[in-house]
Amino acid sequence: MKKGFASDNNSGVRPDILKAMEAANPGHYTGYGNDPFTQKAISVFKENFGRETEVFFVFNGTGANVLGLSSVTRSFNSIICAETAHIQEDECGAPEKFTGCKLLPVETKNGKLTPEIIQHHLKGFDFEHHSQPKVISISQVTEMGTVYQPEEIKALAGLAHSHNMLLHMDGARIANAAVSLNLGFREFTKDCGVDVLSFGGTKNGMMMGEAVVFFNPDLAKQTKYLRKQSMQLYSKMRFVGAQFVAYFENDLWKETAAHANKMAKMLEAEIKQIPEVKITQPVEANGIFALVPPKIVKPLQEQFFFYIWNEQNSEVRWMTSFDTTENEIREFAALIKKLVSEK
Amino acid sequence: MKKGFASDNNSGVRPDILKAMEAANPGHYTGYGNDPFTQKAISVFKENFGRETEVFFVFNGTGANVLGLSSVTRSFNSIICAETAHIQEDECGAPEKFTGCKLLPVETKNGKLTPEIIQHHLKGFDFEHHSQPKVISISQVTEMGTVYQPEEIKALAGLAHSHNMLLHMDGARIANAAVSLNLGFREFTKDCGVDVLSFGGTKNGMMMGEAVVFFNPDLAKQTKYLRKQSMQLYSKMRFVGAQFVAYFENDLWKETAAHANKMAKMLEAEIKQIPEVKITQPVEANGIFALVPPKIVKPLQEQFFFYIWNEQNSEVRWMTSFDTTENEIREFAALIKKLVSEK
Amino acid sequence: MKKGFASDNNSGVRPDILKAMEAANPGHYTGYGNDPFTQKAISVFKENFGRETEVFFVFNGTGANVLGLSSVTRSFNSIICAETAHIQEDECGAPEKFTGCKLLPVETKNGKLTPEIIQHHLKGFDFEHHSQPKVISISQVTEMGTVYQPEEIKALAGLAHSHNMLLHMDGARIANAAVSLNLGFREFTKDCGVDVLSFGGTKNGMMMGEAVVFFNPDLAKQTKYLRKQSMQLYSKMRFVGAQFVAYFENDLWKETAAHANKMAKMLEAEIKQIPEVKITQPVEANGIFALVPPKIVKPLQEQFFFYIWNEQNSEVRWMTSFDTTENEIREFAALIKKLVSEK
Amino acid sequence: MKKGFASDNNSGVRPDILKAMEAANPGHYTGYGNDPFTQKAISVFKENFGRETEVFFVFNGTGANVLGLSSVTRSFNSIICAETAHIQEDECGAPEKFTGCKLLPVETKNGKLTPEIIQHHLKGFDFEHHSQPKVISISQVTEMGTVYQPEEIKALAGLAHSHNMLLHMDGARIANAAVSLNLGFREFTKDCGVDVLSFGGTKNGMMMGEAVVFFNPDLAKQTKYLRKQSMQLYSKMRFVGAQFVAYFENDLWKETAAHANKMAKMLEAEIKQIPEVKITQPVEANGIFALVPPKIVKPLQEQFFFYIWNEQNSEVRWMTSFDTTENEIREFAALIKKLVSEK
Repeated sequence: MKKGFASDNNSGVRPDILKAMEAANPGHYTGYGNDPFTQKAISVFKENFGRETEVFFVFNGTGANVLGLSSVTRSFNSIICAETAHIQEDECGAPEKFTGCKLLPVETKNGKLTPEIIQHHLKGFDFEHHSQPKVISISQVTEMGTVYQPEEIKALAGLAHSHNMLLHMDGARIANAAVSLNLGFREFTKDCGVDVLSFGGTKNGMMMGEAVVFFNPDLAKQTKYLRKQSMQLYSKMRFVGAQFVAYFENDLWKETAAHANKMAKMLEAEIKQIPEVKITQPVEANGIFALVPPKIVKPLQEQFFFYIWNEQNSEVRWMTSFDTTENEIREFAALIKKLVSEK
Repeated sequence: MKKGFASDNNSGVRPDILKAMEAANPGHYTGYGNDPFTQKAISVFKENFGRETEVFFVFNGTGANVLGLSSVTRSFNSIICAETAHIQEDECGAPEKFTGCKLLPVETKNGKLTPEIIQHHLKGFDFEHHSQPKVISISQVTEMGTVYQPEEIKALAGLAHSHNMLLHMDGARIANAAVSLNLGFREFTKDCGVDVLSFGGTKNGMMMGEAVVFFNPDLAKQTKYLRKQSMQLYSKMRFVGAQFVAYFENDLWKETAAHANKMAKMLEAEIKQIPEVKITQPVEANGIFALVPPKIVKPLQEQFFFYIWNEQNSEVRWMTSFDTTENEIREFAALIKKLVSEK
Repeated sequence: MKKGFASDNNSGVRPDILKAMEAANPGHYTGYGNDPFTQKAISVFKENFGRETEVFFVFNGTGANVLGLSSVTRSFNSIICAETAHIQEDECGAPEKFTGCKLLPVETKNGKLTPEIIQHHLKGFDFEHHSQPKVISISQVTEMGTVYQPEEIKALAGLAHSHNMLLHMDGARIANAAVSLNLGFREFTKDCGVDVLSFGGTKNGMMMGEAVVFFNPDLAKQTKYLRKQSMQLYSKMRFVGAQFVAYFENDLWKETAAHANKMAKMLEAEIKQIPEVKITQPVEANGIFALVPPKIVKPLQEQFFFYIWNEQNSEVRWMTSFDTTENEIREFAALIKKLVSEK
Repeated sequence: MKKGFASDNNSGVRPDILKAMEAANPGHYTGYGNDPFTQKAISVFKENFGRETEVFFVFNGTGANVLGLSSVTRSFNSIICAETAHIQEDECGAPEKFTGCKLLPVETKNGKLTPEIIQHHLKGFDFEHHSQPKVISISQVTEMGTVYQPEEIKALAGLAHSHNMLLHMDGARIANAAVSLNLGFREFTKDCGVDVLSFGGTKNGMMMGEAVVFFNPDLAKQTKYLRKQSMQLYSKMRFVGAQFVAYFENDLWKETAAHANKMAKMLEAEIKQIPEVKITQPVEANGIFALVPPKIVKPLQEQFFFYIWNEQNSEVRWMTSFDTTENEIREFAALIKKLVSEK
């Protein structure tokens, strides 16, 4: 099947990561994380984020978000997020089901929360009739393809902490954000006041595997039980551990994400030459949102699959991936040009 | 690390299954199961279990059990199981947490439920103060290494159905059971009245991946939502699909499980020659339970790792795997003999 | 303590209702609803709403809402409501905790939903990543003191049903709505397409007790178990039954609510003569919302207690009750006049 | 209807308690507990149990148990109880649903746990696959009508605390226990190491209302939110507060429970003269368990209603109440004598 622009998880696994998995295959190892690959992967996270960091590997992004959030909440808490957040829109209610918490979605222009637009939810503290606000959750990269600047994250963390709340980051595409910001992971997470991080791997060339990262180990004291209870404890954990080791080695993650981001920028440049298509969000990572003439959607999808973001206004989302080629970008842009000009 | 007898999930992946995963890697495919590998795997299940079968792939065994059980229960139901059942002992309360149901553990001699020993729980129907019995859950192979005979399963299914209840089978080691019974999967599941099946792959040479199988599609109408909400929907599902296709091809599963079972039988034969060690359960699949002299546990574990089952009476559990060798069995038995005779 | 305008639940019990409770006291009766008082109360509901109605008594309003909603949802559903709804703002997350569902709050002008403003949430059907919209929940009277007209309810019911969804009404103040509309209960509930109704008594002169009413008995098949499991099954149920019998007898509810509504109208008339105070919502039942000069809040509260609705703009809420007197209204209005004119 | 022996909750309300409720009726009071009646009731509890005690009133016994247990557990914990415990048998799974915990029922001879019979559940600490044991829950009076002696409670508390666990007491019939032991409430709860207590009122002459009592205030820090979220926060709380004030005044509770217990003893004495009926449990409070000839059950129930405890062996339960009269006991015993001797 021709590669499309539907999602960065439509791609397979980077060959070097697959190789690392094969290399981890021979022999017996204790299950559930007590193997050298997983232990090595944990060390790598500690090197990146600091010695006192606690790391828990899980299967997927929803699992990571739910485990991180359930570790730091009780059922009577609320979680503030963008109305476009994955935890609000795309997890079929897993956060509510597993944490019992109320999610408070906030309308945004570009997928990014700001202190101003969430202010009205910071109320009802100590009032037993009201779900107690406990977490501000942001996505980095956002679901709209935008990237929080460090000072924006700091402002939200400061606001959270001043209310005895925590800042959670859904980093399903954190590598794309790091490349976009040209910063190390720590600089725009822990150093900006993030408390709990879902660190994604699957969307950037891994087969499966995400990490829940706590910068304050006190927050993680019950996480191991919650991971098991939330069905996210993997028996043959070595295969996630080995991937993460390879992922960090020689900054593999950076090369991968940088390519995806570059492809998005290239596509943006191509699209800007097509007046019938209007890009609706700043292209800051590996996603492009655009208004396209409705008539081109179907024929375009037939050759390069992608998702419609908003049926109402014919807004589409195009995601690039580690294996998107310059040729594919050119072909895709050429097809758009051809389709918009037809009849 | 030397291979031990701790668990069949301490082994890696069968090389031919790993190869199938690599073969599935190139190119883009729609995520979450809408790919040809997953679709093919579903077909294979339907071939094995009948056209009307509904199949849902998940990450792990706990996920499979919880998804199957939550599909067929409401929170006010109860689930009857052996007190040794994985859902009772080894899932950190995931079934209670996610289904809301009450688990009713029953003491058994050998891990197997019978109509007699669960009879006293079949009460309180229609009585709103009482959790409503809805599911009888059995493990095949049981956690004690024993295997239900078809007529035993039929009796439990009949009992369940006569009370408007369902029979769930935790088949984490279903391949070992099939080999032990010398039957096809369908013959001791669907054909015996099982309603919901957790079909395991990980413990028999797969990397990860289990299937929840419903023989009556009406029971599965809400399962796709529950799978997502229970954090068990895998984005790059092709890698589970490809494994299951390979697993069924040329009865790979049978070869794998047959070897593991054979190794257990070989170990049994060796052990029977050691009067100081007493096997406590019939060896019907790939697990051996035995009382050993306490003094030998530590030195034995140092060379071949395994778990103590019962600290009180020094009962141990030895599991064989697809990659256990005859040599290892001999070495292990020889070491036991040496250790028991020392001093 | 002087009566204030804080809430209609700050009043006690109508003396005739208290008398009915005393009359039910002597003797033994089977618990949990199988007593003649409860049975009679159920009959009265059936007379009002139709033979096929199913009625379940519970302790309080949150219990009623949660029981009604949990009866008709699964955990992967979503529930659309006004952002001011009691289930969203005032139940400390009980609906999420007990149903597992996602609540989708919608901004409104006056506490009332319309088909237009909820339209954007009617999406994602059959898409397993998205919580499945299942219920539209409205409050009648709304938390802003406004009342839905029958045609407005019909429009929402029609929209719900056309999407295979249901309409839930939180009728904590349903008697005040009935009086306001000059309609019988059935005319603006069942006859307008409402599927599940929380029928309140406590805020209109009862001691405790609400009813969950299902107009389609198929929706209530599991409610008795859910009531017990949600801790809402009262052992000495006769004392709720007796209250509801008295409540309906001679239209007691109507007299009570009519008085409360009348007092609100009287207060409105008084307030309209005070230019410094601006009423912000139509006064359609027994609540008045008004912007008052910040300086008068404290001294006014000291004599007649009430709650500030919105700290930001000094909006207050005044509720009248069955036992509010004309004198109290006059005194209260006089005090406001005095306070606004001071200094 | 003739008074029977079905349950102590089949009786109404003690007239003096009803009077206290009426006395609390006039006037307005802030809702949800901030009224002088509730505040006075809290003081009374503190006088009985110590200044640092935290008290939360709820509607019913299931609500009390669930609120107490959810305050001190996380979802991955387990709760050890007798297999006859109300939380296991009679709450339709409310504890599992609301706490997410696993209940571990233990077979007992007389409804009472001992350190010996629960020992095998005290395992798996720190092991993430295993629900973490956190609470031992006992009922005082037990569901079998037996009463724990102080030293028995101390032994269980000591065992719990030595494992970093807590002791919960379901005191639905705590007054009957106090009378039976001839001790004050504190002497066999707090002073014996109980951590969390469900203090019952409804079964001993109140209309409704139970209290959750924490002897260590640190355990109660989140209880107010959990009470609201568990639908147990009563708006017109004064009517529970006023009952408890009356209940403690002049040791009303003691008079009430003493009478019920005395009636049970009187019935026991009568029954002992009937060789065809065999009492199966020590009569230590207000319940009698007895094996009766199956033929007498129906005709006996027709005149004095009661419940069959065990269909298998024709064991019945007879409960006496504050309003059971000596005459009723005599009539009942006479009827039994007559029925057993017929034909």
